[in-house]
Amino acid sequence: MTGSIEFYFDFSSPYSYFASHKIDALADRHERDVAWKPVMIGAAFKQTGARPLTETPMKGEYAKHDWQRLARFMEIPWTLPEPFPIAALAPSRAFYWLADKDPGQARLFARTAFAAYYGEGRNISRPDVVADLAAPLHVDGEELLAAIKEPEIKARLRQETELAIARGVFGAPFIFIDNEPFWGSDRMWMIDKWLDRGGW
Amino acid sequence: MTGSIEFYFDFSSPYSYFASHKIDALADRHERDVAWKPVMIGAAFKQTGARPLTETPMKGEYAKHDWQRLARFMEIPWTLPEPFPIAALAPSRAFYWLADKDPGQARLFARTAFAAYYGEGRNISRPDVVADLAAPLHVDGEELLAAIKEPEIKARLRQETELAIARGVFGAPFIFIDNEPFWGSDRMWMIDKWLDRGGW
Repeated sequence: MTGSIEFYFDFSSPYSYFASHKIDALADRHERDVAWKPVMIGAAFKQTGARPLTETPMKGEYAKHDWQRLARFMEIPWTLPEPFPIAALAPSRAFYWLADKDPGQARLFARTAFAAYYGEGRNISRPDVVADLAAPLHVDGEELLAAIKEPEIKARLRQETELAIARGVFGAPFIFIDNEPFWGSDRMWMIDKWLDRGGW
Repeated sequence: MTGSIEFYFDFSSPYSYFASHKIDALADRHERDVAWKPVMIGAAFKQTGARPLTETPMKGEYAKHDWQRLARFMEIPWTLPEPFPIAALAPSRAFYWLADKDPGQARLFARTAFAAYYGEGRNISRPDVVADLAAPLHVDGEELLAAIKEPEIKARLRQETELAIARGVFGAPFIFIDNEPFWGSDRMWMIDKWLDRGGW
């Protein structure tokens, strides 16, 4: 019962952004590592019939208000970026390319991308923006831009997404602890409790 | 800022059942009353495109597991009733009929109906079951069965549901505090915080 906490997220999911600010501290309290795993959650929406929140009547208006409120309560930056939602292929592919070399650097990149998108409204679906964001992490921009076009990296993101869906991931964030599933940024309390009691 | 906490719920919503075990204690801590308001949330689903959880691919399986887990963590009874979901017209109409005479008795009835459905799997969509449940509360069964057929009571439930939807209620439970909306049984922490800080 000491495996990594698996943190599935989509860069285009505000609730993933909020969870990204909590998951590592929560894991630290229980002496667990976190494996960050970006996926394209839209692929799961095709199975569930879900639509992006901002395109869903009633729920969209609530969500926009809720994101502002959550950011305020958590005291973290927030802006509803334009465009939103995005197909976050570029940052997700860049993440896996970095992760294969240095998981810590990949996580730092993920935080940077989240902050750029939801803090400053920068369009992280653009490869050039992703390269800019990676530069301060001593990543060569040209190398990154070439890497995220490689069939292997594209296949990697597709495989991670397919595996996630096969495991039951239908929304983001979605967290597994020893294969126990937890959906949503609201379930940090339950994850805490689960780890405290060591399961059921 | 001392109005009642408005607790919108649907008897056919497991997350409403879970919230019903928490809302009064939470309100007590902040010296607030709770106005319980059953609605037919399916009417909102027509606008959002949502389907009952158990009929939604992937999400349905997760929800069934999650309900068991929540009940275990909260140490309250749980069974997935059959049939599920139901159109909870009978208990919702009985609730408003009782509430007009005695809100405390109506709330007790709501707790009894929730316990019968999710604790024992009794089909509370049946008027005769509703009359049986109300009997220990000193409610005349014949009078109740006649009341829930009255056009006024039917209209009352319809109006409460329409008003809720007009206010943005798209799921259950849905809670308002001084018109601030909170969706879901997972948001008790936020309601607590909201009441502590007195708003934003």
